[in-house]
Amino acid sequence: MATKENSIAHPTLIQVRFPANQQKGIHNRWHPDIPPFVTVKPGEVFKIECIDWTGAQIGNNDNSDDIKNVNLTGVHNLSGPIAVEGAEPGDCLVVDILDVTPFDKMPWGYTGIFELNNGGGLFAREFNSKAAKAIWDFKGIFATSRHIPGVRFAGVSHPGLIGTAPSAELLATWNKREGQLIAECGNCVPPVAFPPESVGSYVGQDLGKDVLEKIGREGARTIPGREHGGNCDIKNLSRGSRCYFPVFVKGANLSVGDLSFCGAIEMAGIITFSTSIIKGGVEKFALKQPIFLPSPIDPLYSAKLVFEGISVDYHGDGKQYNMDATVAYKQAALNAIAYLQKVFSREQAYLLLSAAPIESHVGAVVDSPNACVTLALPLGIFEHDILPKEDGLTKKDFGQCAIRSDGVV
Amino acid sequence: MATKENSIAHPTLIQVRFPANQQKGIHNRWHPDIPPFVTVKPGEVFKIECIDWTGAQIGNNDNSDDIKNVNLTGVHNLSGPIAVEGAEPGDCLVVDILDVTPFDKMPWGYTGIFELNNGGGLFAREFNSKAAKAIWDFKGIFATSRHIPGVRFAGVSHPGLIGTAPSAELLATWNKREGQLIAECGNCVPPVAFPPESVGSYVGQDLGKDVLEKIGREGARTIPGREHGGNCDIKNLSRGSRCYFPVFVKGANLSVGDLSFCGAIEMAGIITFSTSIIKGGVEKFALKQPIFLPSPIDPLYSAKLVFEGISVDYHGDGKQYNMDATVAYKQAALNAIAYLQKVFSREQAYLLLSAAPIESHVGAVVDSPNACVTLALPLGIFEHDILPKEDGLTKKDFGQCAIRSDGVV
Amino acid sequence: MATKENSIAHPTLIQVRFPANQQKGIHNRWHPDIPPFVTVKPGEVFKIECIDWTGAQIGNNDNSDDIKNVNLTGVHNLSGPIAVEGAEPGDCLVVDILDVTPFDKMPWGYTGIFELNNGGGLFAREFNSKAAKAIWDFKGIFATSRHIPGVRFAGVSHPGLIGTAPSAELLATWNKREGQLIAECGNCVPPVAFPPESVGSYVGQDLGKDVLEKIGREGARTIPGREHGGNCDIKNLSRGSRCYFPVFVKGANLSVGDLSFCGAIEMAGIITFSTSIIKGGVEKFALKQPIFLPSPIDPLYSAKLVFEGISVDYHGDGKQYNMDATVAYKQAALNAIAYLQKVFSREQAYLLLSAAPIESHVGAVVDSPNACVTLALPLGIFEHDILPKEDGLTKKDFGQCAIRSDGVV
Amino acid sequence: MATKENSIAHPTLIQVRFPANQQKGIHNRWHPDIPPFVTVKPGEVFKIECIDWTGAQIGNNDNSDDIKNVNLTGVHNLSGPIAVEGAEPGDCLVVDILDVTPFDKMPWGYTGIFELNNGGGLFAREFNSKAAKAIWDFKGIFATSRHIPGVRFAGVSHPGLIGTAPSAELLATWNKREGQLIAECGNCVPPVAFPPESVGSYVGQDLGKDVLEKIGREGARTIPGREHGGNCDIKNLSRGSRCYFPVFVKGANLSVGDLSFCGAIEMAGIITFSTSIIKGGVEKFALKQPIFLPSPIDPLYSAKLVFEGISVDYHGDGKQYNMDATVAYKQAALNAIAYLQKVFSREQAYLLLSAAPIESHVGAVVDSPNACVTLALPLGIFEHDILPKEDGLTKKDFGQCAIRSDGVV
Repeated sequence: MATKENSIAHPTLIQVRFPANQQKGIHNRWHPDIPPFVTVKPGEVFKIECIDWTGAQIGNNDNSDDIKNVNLTGVHNLSGPIAVEGAEPGDCLVVDILDVTPFDKMPWGYTGIFELNNGGGLFAREFNSKAAKAIWDFKGIFATSRHIPGVRFAGVSHPGLIGTAPSAELLATWNKREGQLIAECGNCVPPVAFPPESVGSYVGQDLGKDVLEKIGREGARTIPGREHGGNCDIKNLSRGSRCYFPVFVKGANLSVGDLSFCGAIEMAGIITFSTSIIKGGVEKFALKQPIFLPSPIDPLYSAKLVFEGISVDYHGDGKQYNMDATVAYKQAALNAIAYLQKVFSREQAYLLLSAAPIESHVGAVVDSPNACVTLALPLGIFEHDILPKEDGLTKKDFGQCAIRSDGVV
Repeated sequence: MATKENSIAHPTLIQVRFPANQQKGIHNRWHPDIPPFVTVKPGEVFKIECIDWTGAQIGNNDNSDDIKNVNLTGVHNLSGPIAVEGAEPGDCLVVDILDVTPFDKMPWGYTGIFELNNGGGLFAREFNSKAAKAIWDFKGIFATSRHIPGVRFAGVSHPGLIGTAPSAELLATWNKREGQLIAECGNCVPPVAFPPESVGSYVGQDLGKDVLEKIGREGARTIPGREHGGNCDIKNLSRGSRCYFPVFVKGANLSVGDLSFCGAIEMAGIITFSTSIIKGGVEKFALKQPIFLPSPIDPLYSAKLVFEGISVDYHGDGKQYNMDATVAYKQAALNAIAYLQKVFSREQAYLLLSAAPIESHVGAVVDSPNACVTLALPLGIFEHDILPKEDGLTKKDFGQCAIRSDGVV
Repeated sequence: MATKENSIAHPTLIQVRFPANQQKGIHNRWHPDIPPFVTVKPGEVFKIECIDWTGAQIGNNDNSDDIKNVNLTGVHNLSGPIAVEGAEPGDCLVVDILDVTPFDKMPWGYTGIFELNNGGGLFAREFNSKAAKAIWDFKGIFATSRHIPGVRFAGVSHPGLIGTAPSAELLATWNKREGQLIAECGNCVPPVAFPPESVGSYVGQDLGKDVLEKIGREGARTIPGREHGGNCDIKNLSRGSRCYFPVFVKGANLSVGDLSFCGAIEMAGIITFSTSIIKGGVEKFALKQPIFLPSPIDPLYSAKLVFEGISVDYHGDGKQYNMDATVAYKQAALNAIAYLQKVFSREQAYLLLSAAPIESHVGAVVDSPNACVTLALPLGIFEHDILPKEDGLTKKDFGQCAIRSDGVV
Repeated sequence: MATKENSIAHPTLIQVRFPANQQKGIHNRWHPDIPPFVTVKPGEVFKIECIDWTGAQIGNNDNSDDIKNVNLTGVHNLSGPIAVEGAEPGDCLVVDILDVTPFDKMPWGYTGIFELNNGGGLFAREFNSKAAKAIWDFKGIFATSRHIPGVRFAGVSHPGLIGTAPSAELLATWNKREGQLIAECGNCVPPVAFPPESVGSYVGQDLGKDVLEKIGREGARTIPGREHGGNCDIKNLSRGSRCYFPVFVKGANLSVGDLSFCGAIEMAGIITFSTSIIKGGVEKFALKQPIFLPSPIDPLYSAKLVFEGISVDYHGDGKQYNMDATVAYKQAALNAIAYLQKVFSREQAYLLLSAAPIESHVGAVVDSPNACVTLALPLGIFEHDILPKEDGLTKKDFGQCAIRSDGVV
């Protein structure tokens, strides 16, 4: 008979309840001196709760003033570190991402366009971005938005940010090379990179003042991805995937955060893990960065409309770039947005492209001077037919997404 | 009863028999003054034969001297132009790529590593490339190579190069912006772009001397992709896909070539098309570049091993780049090659990655300073298990691919 | 800012806490006179808790005595009925199965082989079945079993049993035709069908004695599938699917139960729904039975080993059957079990085939006298390679599943 | 350089040119005494030409009189036998189906409804079938039909009929069990099975009179599938699949025919094979019937509409059948036809369902008394939207398929 005694829930090892900067088990810097907050054995199944990357600053409402005024000094918040018994530098930490779900009590997330001068984003300059957002309601495996009617898609829930702790040597390498880039670029807007910064540094544990100061002074910001993983925003590193991380410190010290429902639908929620260790895996697999096996349950939308982009015309100037896949990627995205604007508003089109399960492929980076990148938009997420048809596309009355209370877009 | 009278083959409108530079219906420059070689009606199904991009310079043999000495002045050879009745500037030309097959009489193709100073390639500098190649035998829908044992994969046969003819204005724009890039970059090796060049210019038709000189002087090289399509090397623009091209000249003047079996397995063969026209489609679909619907029969290998790359360390120098997806893509590819070298030789690993049905996704280009790109290698193409396992990977005795007759690699 | 006020959980409309036969909102007969237990509006998202089909009789332990002694008089238990405002006979009730999950507090399920004389099953006679079971541990989206080592698969979670309430006329039709079959078959073992039965009849509501007696006397057993849906055990009617049911009574009166994790991993848990109504849908869609759209997140295992079966040799007697797809299906399954027995024990092989995400296709039922049915076993669920290889398959030391405490198998 | 000398086509070992009953290398009976027509070595790639199953009796025209009057005494015609060097009874013959294509010169096929009294078919009695047909034009990987406008689908080209030769013992078993079925069923229409028949027997080789008579007297008809493979009509045993056959006679003696483009689009064409042998494979893999690995390039249409069927009401009589998957399959198909008749004519709907890449799954055969079978119709093959919508479906003016010249349907 099924009983309480033979039905044991998997334990939740980090719980989030308070404001981010008072929460134990949350940190926002990478540093080898942040001790593990919890320790697990290989094979154990456990859950970790995560706040959203901003620390709950964004609300489920219909204007974007919270996006406009978001405080970014403390981002991104991570849950951890989690030590795995027996892991040592040079090993490979195998992490099974068994599930990623929103909280039952909080079935929504958001996609934001950030202001050019506060957060920026892919088209911050092209669009002279003003804050806007779409709230997405989670309905089981699907999300819909009252701010972008007519679409519904299944989530590729994933941690935007997951990685092992760097060693002191690796951290020094990061700080050196990123410092050089900052030095070269001067006062770019938006900034090219973010140096260590004591203000806003938070480790989620009671540590000595010296250590806290050292972490504030040296700790790498959690914004970008690096050799240990970090903020790679890889949609397909989703629930069900198996990831192989290089280990740089004793215990591996895994941290995770920035949960997303799909493309960039930011959310708070729960991630379920189990881990194992392959001794000497860094050498065995030539592991310079994480590698992973994707999930068998990533949504399958076989019909797609694909947009191409080439490395020309970064800011509308028609300039020829030299085999630049970033420019080509932007062009493909701009071409998709232009297409979607035949149906949606400009802000809706931009937000939809950020949120949806798109796939962007690097086609070619060998045919000088043009890199070619494609972006595939699944057709199955639209309630209406958006295929290219004889009669063209029909602009629907889909209103507008959440914008600033002063009405500026 | 089935009879000859009720069984009519689809016509072959361009046939290739002679050396490339004597062949009618072949050209290697983009120019509005190259007249259509054939004209078709919308809805008609027809076949076009193509030579490989080098014009049959590479042989089915076991050394790579032909790669080393390849003459690149005439590349890439295209079949066409094909005019479609009724197409006018501003229209959208819908092209169904109904099939792409090798010739029955020539069931093989090749993947090459070109010399740093003659052809280059993605890792020409990192590898100080010496000529190497793999011959792939086509066995129905599959390819195998005696030069890279232990792999077999289904083809995503596609035209590497397909596009409509540019208008005079568009051609002028190309020449201007590419000229500026060349001017800025001076004598880079390999070159950043290729200006118009009379030597080797070929149009495949008997035209007046003035026109030929004009085309030689102004005609855009067929090497890169541009707004009309061109050499985008998009694996998924494969047989079965439907492509929407902007039309710039009366008749659209479609040309095609550079057939590939999969990633970069170069081949000669036959492409089957049908076309239709959407009047005013450029405006209707905001068509700055081609868009397309992928094929329902692209091979499905659900299990994949995914490699990550970030925008650091372009040439082994550890340098930090600013959100550069090209660098991140290269890193992901180098990580995959390093992994494959645990099993194959360096040249085999590089060639295999060029040939196989890999998929490279742009993960993120918003988390300064690191772009993150992933590269997915399907596991189903290997006869042996290449998953990361407790015991590591086993170096097999897989010999070596075709190398130079002087033995230099 | 995210607040409690703007974060509202979807409501749970039926909760299960007590023994099945004391639980409100649970019933085990189909009858139009069972009133709705809850009523919802179209568009509302809501959750329904379900007990497992046996009412929690099976435990998470290592012998199968609970399977051997299971009491089947009360099966299958359903949660409901759920009325949808506005639904009327002749309408189509659209049901979105938004999610299906086990309880957090009960992360396990089971697959059972039932005794020939108590529950039976597909091969009850061929195997002279003795009770056995495998317990499956749910680890996020995956299940593994200590009783069948070496396999892990992602769940296609689904309600085995879901349907709308029959009208009095439809119920009478069922009782008549099934009664005739029972009359014809006499005392078959296992029985060919189950007539209405007052003993064990349960409706989960306080109703008058007359009504309860009528329901006991007339109510259709919940065991088979019928025109309203019911126990179809359609694996692909899974979370994420959209189902269109014919409506036979005012409110439609939907009921659901018999949750499964994958093939036949029985579990208790939570199903999330939303509904809508298409007026007159039965006529609009010629709706004789439910139709549905599958989920975009059903697990994708592209590599499969497929077994064939023909309509011969039902019970090892070599007899030729006339185009009988049931016999062909059994043969295909027996062929798969024989193959798996090269690696696993007989009981493990049988249970694995019951639990795994297999797909069985009807190949042909036109080539007299043999129907041909195939059964596809995904290769990606095995930790070891089970492909047909030169050296054959290797019997692993995988122990045995849970068997009877008297050791009889 | 690519040359004629290094470009060798795969050989075509059986060519078809004459009427079927004069053609060498064609036979229409299974018998161990038919000697191999060609012999191949393991590993060799070779091509085999096949006529369609009727021997070219059906024409590319617009009436169905040829279907009405088809002569079925000689069907199905097979190409072969093909001996593989080294194969012996008890071995497993591995057959790679490398490609299956129509002849270039004959880019069309057909789907037929056969008369109740001449050929029959799945719904011969329900529909009181009158001859009808649809001609499908092959356009690269796609087929379209002027007789069923508005659909286009990619082919899952496959041999409907492929198998190894039976031993004398196996043949005797077939003849005995099928003879018993025929004896039991008397004069059913359509017949339940077909006994050996000298009239129309053809072996495609010059053999002695005694042998020819023996083959005529004993040879199994090629209509059904059996333990050796045969006419299983398994759509997914398509080009790109790898099949494992049991070997019953020295050389295995493989034969093949009845090529199809997709569901049941009959065609003549070319199949490309290679083979290998696993010694003792019958025992190693418990090989009672063939098993196979599906192709990686089977078309992927993720969006599907699924119809359910239960084992009730075989001939419109409402009768309850006992767990009969054949009846359930028919019900699912009839439900799909009823749905499609909202758009197409009855004959078009029936033919479309026969031709299209549908998938029929056996859901459950354990919930007495109803087997449940589903049939999935891919949505991507329709040019118009056939989803269940608020407004219902729209009957299009799609004319009618090819019918008898006397106009009877």
